[in-house]
Amino acid sequence: MTTPPVAIIMGSQSDWATMKHAAETLDRLGIAHDDRIVSAHRTPKRLYDFATSARAAGVQVIIAGAGGAAHLPGMAAAMTSLPVFGVPVESRALSGQDSLLSIVQMPAGIPVGTLAIGKAGAVNAALLAASVLSLGDPALARRLDAFRAEQTAAVAERPKDEA
Amino acid sequence: MTTPPVAIIMGSQSDWATMKHAAETLDRLGIAHDDRIVSAHRTPKRLYDFATSARAAGVQVIIAGAGGAAHLPGMAAAMTSLPVFGVPVESRALSGQDSLLSIVQMPAGIPVGTLAIGKAGAVNAALLAASVLSLGDPALARRLDAFRAEQTAAVAERPKDEA
Amino acid sequence: MTTPPVAIIMGSQSDWATMKHAAETLDRLGIAHDDRIVSAHRTPKRLYDFATSARAAGVQVIIAGAGGAAHLPGMAAAMTSLPVFGVPVESRALSGQDSLLSIVQMPAGIPVGTLAIGKAGAVNAALLAASVLSLGDPALARRLDAFRAEQTAAVAERPKDEA
Amino acid sequence: MTTPPVAIIMGSQSDWATMKHAAETLDRLGIAHDDRIVSAHRTPKRLYDFATSARAAGVQVIIAGAGGAAHLPGMAAAMTSLPVFGVPVESRALSGQDSLLSIVQMPAGIPVGTLAIGKAGAVNAALLAASVLSLGDPALARRLDAFRAEQTAAVAERPKDEA
Amino acid sequence: MTTPPVAIIMGSQSDWATMKHAAETLDRLGIAHDDRIVSAHRTPKRLYDFATSARAAGVQVIIAGAGGAAHLPGMAAAMTSLPVFGVPVESRALSGQDSLLSIVQMPAGIPVGTLAIGKAGAVNAALLAASVLSLGDPALARRLDAFRAEQTAAVAERPKDEA
Amino acid sequence: MTTPPVAIIMGSQSDWATMKHAAETLDRLGIAHDDRIVSAHRTPKRLYDFATSARAAGVQVIIAGAGGAAHLPGMAAAMTSLPVFGVPVESRALSGQDSLLSIVQMPAGIPVGTLAIGKAGAVNAALLAASVLSLGDPALARRLDAFRAEQTAAVAERPKDEA
Amino acid sequence: MTTPPVAIIMGSQSDWATMKHAAETLDRLGIAHDDRIVSAHRTPKRLYDFATSARAAGVQVIIAGAGGAAHLPGMAAAMTSLPVFGVPVESRALSGQDSLLSIVQMPAGIPVGTLAIGKAGAVNAALLAASVLSLGDPALARRLDAFRAEQTAAVAERPKDEA
Amino acid sequence: MTTPPVAIIMGSQSDWATMKHAAETLDRLGIAHDDRIVSAHRTPKRLYDFATSARAAGVQVIIAGAGGAAHLPGMAAAMTSLPVFGVPVESRALSGQDSLLSIVQMPAGIPVGTLAIGKAGAVNAALLAASVLSLGDPALARRLDAFRAEQTAAVAERPKDEA
Repeated sequence: MTTPPVAIIMGSQSDWATMKHAAETLDRLGIAHDDRIVSAHRTPKRLYDFATSARAAGVQVIIAGAGGAAHLPGMAAAMTSLPVFGVPVESRALSGQDSLLSIVQMPAGIPVGTLAIGKAGAVNAALLAASVLSLGDPALARRLDAFRAEQTAAVAERPKDEA
Repeated sequence: MTTPPVAIIMGSQSDWATMKHAAETLDRLGIAHDDRIVSAHRTPKRLYDFATSARAAGVQVIIAGAGGAAHLPGMAAAMTSLPVFGVPVESRALSGQDSLLSIVQMPAGIPVGTLAIGKAGAVNAALLAASVLSLGDPALARRLDAFRAEQTAAVAERPKDEA
Repeated sequence: MTTPPVAIIMGSQSDWATMKHAAETLDRLGIAHDDRIVSAHRTPKRLYDFATSARAAGVQVIIAGAGGAAHLPGMAAAMTSLPVFGVPVESRALSGQDSLLSIVQMPAGIPVGTLAIGKAGAVNAALLAASVLSLGDPALARRLDAFRAEQTAAVAERPKDEA
Repeated sequence: MTTPPVAIIMGSQSDWATMKHAAETLDRLGIAHDDRIVSAHRTPKRLYDFATSARAAGVQVIIAGAGGAAHLPGMAAAMTSLPVFGVPVESRALSGQDSLLSIVQMPAGIPVGTLAIGKAGAVNAALLAASVLSLGDPALARRLDAFRAEQTAAVAERPKDEA
Repeated sequence: MTTPPVAIIMGSQSDWATMKHAAETLDRLGIAHDDRIVSAHRTPKRLYDFATSARAAGVQVIIAGAGGAAHLPGMAAAMTSLPVFGVPVESRALSGQDSLLSIVQMPAGIPVGTLAIGKAGAVNAALLAASVLSLGDPALARRLDAFRAEQTAAVAERPKDEA
Repeated sequence: MTTPPVAIIMGSQSDWATMKHAAETLDRLGIAHDDRIVSAHRTPKRLYDFATSARAAGVQVIIAGAGGAAHLPGMAAAMTSLPVFGVPVESRALSGQDSLLSIVQMPAGIPVGTLAIGKAGAVNAALLAASVLSLGDPALARRLDAFRAEQTAAVAERPKDEA
Repeated sequence: MTTPPVAIIMGSQSDWATMKHAAETLDRLGIAHDDRIVSAHRTPKRLYDFATSARAAGVQVIIAGAGGAAHLPGMAAAMTSLPVFGVPVESRALSGQDSLLSIVQMPAGIPVGTLAIGKAGAVNAALLAASVLSLGDPALARRLDAFRAEQTAAVAERPKDEA
Repeated sequence: MTTPPVAIIMGSQSDWATMKHAAETLDRLGIAHDDRIVSAHRTPKRLYDFATSARAAGVQVIIAGAGGAAHLPGMAAAMTSLPVFGVPVESRALSGQDSLLSIVQMPAGIPVGTLAIGKAGAVNAALLAASVLSLGDPALARRLDAFRAEQTAAVAERPKDEA
């Protein structure tokens, strides 16, 4: 049994409502993934163990979603040299502005590729992971291009009034 | 030789320009402190070792300063049940708004008592640490009240034009 | 009859929906508390009397919650050298951004340890108070560590789809 | 000797650089004023004494300037039913956005008429005080209208290139 | 028949949901008021006629509420030397942040005393108008102080759980 | 002598440092313009006279620049059905965020086409005016397309290190 | 068959709920329009083809609505010298603040006249287009002035309580 | 001669002051790169040609930097399925907040991995590109880990006062 190439980690169960869109997008592209709850704040040891062993375990890309003072993506990135993509989960009071700044404003030296706040960001984290994996997987590259072509073809020419 | 009751940690040398004001305020109140650079992102192992052993080592209060996607205070708080006070260091592009939100918006379960952005926050983190320590140290309580009284007395009655 | 070590004060009845989470958290940790409405704006005399006498009365930590132009935490801190922890209550138009800045941006000299906007901040103010009190109360320190361990243990390994 | 009708109060000497523009504007309109440093945080007793006795002392309008977590205008308003006009002083990190929200977002019951951040706000606080006083002082009303007319006349028809 | 001392003007019918709280507060204090819709953008001539004639007509204080790019308070103030108090009405997309900045950030020379966003601001505009009028009306001053005393007395000592 | 097709109006002499870039861009495209100081706040009558007579006088496009609580573009648009393009001038404390929101957030019914904050906005207001005028002026359309082509051609292929 | 003078383009079907208000306003003024979905991100080729051929095809004004990282108005403007008016569609997490900045902050050289966030912006984009077209169409100018007069006449003198 | 695996594109010469830090970081890691000015707004055809041919040409990762209404990263991503990493360049008035939102808030379907505003973001874009390339290049993975180890080793234990 091989390690799935993508690990989706999130700070809590409540983030799954957002992060499942990353999982579904990877499913659609035929990319295996392992979905885990890893809280930087409540389970720092679990995060340490996960992040320091991820590369050796065969993970290739990490997608990390968190909200508020969102430290998960940056702390994962601090403990691995794998690509880490961060998804700012929409927070209650500040609508994810806190999540976004906590993830994207990393200091020089530890990169986190950050996507949009919420569902769109989760979908796009999966697409970006697919893009990365496609560099070494021509079949995936073709599936990704087909996904894009379908997406383009699905855009109607004219707007319709709602029924 | 005893462990100083306050540990001042900061993410990088550049944060010292801000955090030295915490050190100077503690000095003024006669409180020993240990000042260290501990980067959540560049030295996560050092942070893990520091935070998990701080209470046993005799630290009583942790003051943590960081800027941008400032994860140091929250990650220290995640690994100790000591009081952690966070100082948002002023960042270049966003003037510390990112630092503030990254520190203050912690999820329920892991508290960081957050002070103002920049120098005022560093001074106040020291005063808050003194306040905490004064609960078990009547002499310090008297010194703190004296500090406050001097501060009040130093406020002039009327504004003066600058020379 | 002894004074409870923690005083929870809030600007109005409407803040109780937020601040009761501080009360419940203290209850869970076995810490007595006194919950009062003290409005900086509508009852300044009550605030003056409360804050100037709190230390002598045996209060050890003050938790203060308020929203909008939230002056309660800072004004309490101006009149006592006890540790004051501020909880920004979510406001209607600005979602607590006004509350947060009004509480956290205190000038050098008068510290308020500020927590997150809303319920998470109220829970964490209680945990931070517990942390402070635990410095002089080993039994509480053990309860606090047990609380943390339970919290860590309660984090599931994997996300679940909602029923 | 009579009490000047306008009291200008400010949180610290450093606010005078802004608030002196209020003083100068009152001078220009021939309105006496008393300029004092009254810090809500460092001299709360001075504030209490000033605000609770202002009306009886003959003050008619209070202009209060403060920066950061600016509590002075709102706390003065809490202790008098005189009109209070607040001037948000420009703060270092947040350029006065914290000052503005801390002053303007007062809860129902305690009004503070808030002016613009910085020098323009200080000038306008004086003009608004003059406007209020002019209701009972026809000669002042004429001076104020003359001030306005001069101001209008001073606007050139066309822009000039700087020399 | 005399002109009511307070004119409440607003940009549109939809602002009345906010501004009626100003009207009700004036009613409670026994202050007559005239409530009108005057749109800076859709009825500029009506605004011009109103503002330039207000002082002569016997108006003493103008309360102006508007939302979004809220120009009504500032333009009224541009055409009269009466005190103008502005109420930022909560806007849909930006929650009144646009209204607030459009009203409060007036240039030096034309003051608008600005209150909080929404209902609290409307109530407080009325109280500030009362405060201004009380300078020349001792009976009103007593009613205003009584209002304040009742307000203070109505603050319960302790929070109650909701039924 | 004919009326220039473009009127550039601005709130004060200090706005000319920004608005002259609109003038220079119009010069470069061979479009005549009339540059005037018209303050919504200090010269409301001048604004009224200008805006209500502009169409009849032969003006075709109005470019209006202002800062802070910037009411000039919106009030001009309220009094003419000519196209009005607004330029938010950078303000001191809030860097033009107040100017931008005061100009762009107009209510339905009175449009202001808003450009970027500062110099870029001034240049682009001129280009947009040219674009509008080019609809009825084929020679100008050709000049505008040539301007665009030159602009494209001026973009170097590769970045150069500064000397 | 002639090309309608106004093209309304939008990034997706979901933007139609906003942009149909532009269409309805043009209908009311008797201006023909062509409404199309053109996504800068999902159909870049369609955008390229549309924008580069619009002028030759007889389009006179382009109205472009988009939300989030809204690139449609700016990219359309990059490929045509026709006037482009941008409507920031309200986004979920950030309420259209991202849409607004992505549209209005264009660099010097490529102008987009930006309207308010949401429905008001869509209505006003249509009115601005009408204003532009009215320069060469006296009958439309009269209809536009009549629309304005009706709009003014529809403003009631006094607010009414809701039934 | 082979195509360098990384293409660094930027909107203008002025962005090079930021983006050269990406180039230098790639140099340090021994990764070839091609640096080009490609303006979404002034050279849309160049962007179209570059992005649609990049994958076939052998480019593996695109780093795109732009400021203000920054459309370059998103538009490049719209025309290729290669990974695109965006660097928000600090803008004058809004300090890169406009750049950040214009880049990161992409709709579902077209991902851009966004880094921090300014120099830190440029360095990190290079490190993230290295991370991606390291998945298929064990020697680069070792160099990247060595870079990380050096970075960790370079963090001093204690802060030093500036000379």
